[in-house]
Amino acid sequence: MKKSVAQAARKRALEFYDAAAIALTEAERNSIEIADFGLGNLEETGLQLITYINTDRCCAKEMVLFPGQTCPEHIHTPVEEIGYPGKEETFRCRYGTVYLYVSGEPAEHPVCQPPASHKDYYTVWHEVILHPGEQYTIFPGTKHWFQGGANGAVVSEFSTRSFDEYDVFTDPAIVRIPTEEE
Amino acid sequence: MKKSVAQAARKRALEFYDAAAIALTEAERNSIEIADFGLGNLEETGLQLITYINTDRCCAKEMVLFPGQTCPEHIHTPVEEIGYPGKEETFRCRYGTVYLYVSGEPAEHPVCQPPASHKDYYTVWHEVILHPGEQYTIFPGTKHWFQGGANGAVVSEFSTRSFDEYDVFTDPAIVRIPTEEE
Repeated sequence: MKKSVAQAARKRALEFYDAAAIALTEAERNSIEIADFGLGNLEETGLQLITYINTDRCCAKEMVLFPGQTCPEHIHTPVEEIGYPGKEETFRCRYGTVYLYVSGEPAEHPVCQPPASHKDYYTVWHEVILHPGEQYTIFPGTKHWFQGGANGAVVSEFSTRSFDEYDVFTDPAIVRIPTEEE
Repeated sequence: MKKSVAQAARKRALEFYDAAAIALTEAERNSIEIADFGLGNLEETGLQLITYINTDRCCAKEMVLFPGQTCPEHIHTPVEEIGYPGKEETFRCRYGTVYLYVSGEPAEHPVCQPPASHKDYYTVWHEVILHPGEQYTIFPGTKHWFQGGANGAVVSEFSTRSFDEYDVFTDPAIVRIPTEEE
C-alpha cells in the first residue's frame, strides 16, 4: 500500500472515530493501522484499527469500517506451539451499522454482497446485524467476515490475545500484515 | 441498599454514559449494576457498571464514577481451585477524569483523599491520572483503588474473566455483591 493511501485513510478514519465520540490520544490518532489485506483496493476490502492493548491474556481494539468496506472472511485457529486455543472475540457496535456473517444457517436474502472479484472466497452467510450498543461473540473456529453499512461503522473488539499473523483467510491472495511504501 | 437508591443511581449514571456518547441497548440502560460495597453511602463509596461480556476467557465492562466517588481498595488474587492466575485489567478513560492509586512509589501530594471514615483501609498511593483516551493496565496481585474527578468519569475495563465475588478488599466491612431491598 502506498504511504499516501494509508495517510488519507487515517485522516478519513478519524472522521468516524470523532463522529462516534471515541476519545483517542494524539499518538493513537497518528498511528491508526490501515489494513488493505494486500489486495490493493482499500475502499473495497480493508479495515482501520487501533489496538488499545494486547497482552498474553487480553486484547481490545477499536475498528473503523468505511461505508460498504469489507473485512474479508477468516478464522482464528489454535496456535498449538504455545497451547493457545484460538482467539475469542466480541464485536460491539459503537456507531453506524455493521453486517457480520458467520458460520450457521445462511440468510435467504443477505443485505451485503462481498467484493465481486473475490466472491468465491466468501463461504459463510449466517447474518448478524449490529446497531449501536449491540454485540456478538465469535468463538474460535468460526469463519466470519463483516461489512460496514451505508454510514460506515465503529466497532469495539474485546478479545483474548490477538495474533493477527496467524489469522487464516479463505482467500489465499490475502496478506494480513500491511506494508507501506513510498 | 434501598431499591429507590439504586434506581436513582441508575438514572444518574445514564447522564454520564450519555455525556460520553456510549451507545447502550434499552436492556443495558435498565439494568446498570449499582455497587455500594455494603457501606450504605453510595455517593462516597460506590461504582456503577455495565458488564458487556464475561466469558471463561474475556471480560469487558463500562463503568461510571460519580464526581468524587471512590471504588475502594482491592486486589485480584489467583483462584486456585480453577487454576486461574488472577484478573488482569486495563482501565481506559472515556470521559471525565479518573484518579487511580496502585502499589508503588507513593505520590507526595496525592490529588485524592479516600472517604475519611474508612481511610485506614487505603494503603497504596502510587498515583495515575487518566484523562479521556488514556489507559493503564493492572496486573494480578496489584492493590488498587480509584476515584472520579470533579466531573465524574466513564471508564472502559478490558480484562480477563471477572470473578467479582473473589475480589479481596482491604476493608473487611465491604460486601462486593450488592443486594437491593424495598
